[in-house]
Amino acid sequence: MLKLEPIGHVRNGVLSSRDFSEVVSEIVVLPEFVPGLYKLEESEEIDVIFLFDRNIDQGYKLKLHPKGDPDNPEVGVFASHSPFRPNPIGLQRVELLTIDGDRVKVRGLDAFDGTPVLDIKPAKRRDR
Amino acid sequence: MLKLEPIGHVRNGVLSSRDFSEVVSEIVVLPEFVPGLYKLEESEEIDVIFLFDRNIDQGYKLKLHPKGDPDNPEVGVFASHSPFRPNPIGLQRVELLTIDGDRVKVRGLDAFDGTPVLDIKPAKRRDR
Repeated sequence: MLKLEPIGHVRNGVLSSRDFSEVVSEIVVLPEFVPGLYKLEESEEIDVIFLFDRNIDQGYKLKLHPKGDPDNPEVGVFASHSPFRPNPIGLQRVELLTIDGDRVKVRGLDAFDGTPVLDIKPAKRRDR
Repeated sequence: MLKLEPIGHVRNGVLSSRDFSEVVSEIVVLPEFVPGLYKLEESEEIDVIFLFDRNIDQGYKLKLHPKGDPDNPEVGVFASHSPFRPNPIGLQRVELLTIDGDRVKVRGLDAFDGTPVLDIKPAKRRDR
């Protein structure tokens, strides 16, 4: 029904699962989309929408134990952040650190190196 | 790069622009995805990802005046919630009211009647 194209990619050198809460990532925005970042620095937090590109064609589970841990009570996929979803779209609200040209530096983005980014939206305005 | 399919649709009877902050909408989830709602009621707020289906093929502007109002200072599309985006994906964090079978009732979803919903994710856990 709709074809998506990345507006950029995550660069953080992380290639396997870990705690991302302190990981600093750069979203490298494709040249044609850089003007769309204008005044984004006025945001303290941004929503990043990305593709679970490692999970495409792996299907999804409607119910699951979060993080694959059987000790976590079962929930529905829409009550979880599982990457195995009907539409493999990830979303995270993260702290915006700096913007330098085509580089959007954020902290805490739970995505591997190379992840395609689909969209960025302002979430919380910086106090001035 | 990826084809998306709706998991449900917005029903609120709203067919033209208005203030949505008090509008109550139902997301009617397609039968095959209803089990994915299991335990979503434990969330007080949810993130709803939807398609700006009226804006597909209308293109996008990299810089714009929010809400089309020339009095609003120009910003980049990624610093705005404009529906005219490189990937026409909408996102909103809304209050979850009730879940009844295939109906997810929310307040404040800024989307027209019939809007295809792509994903739902938990945003804030209900106090218990």
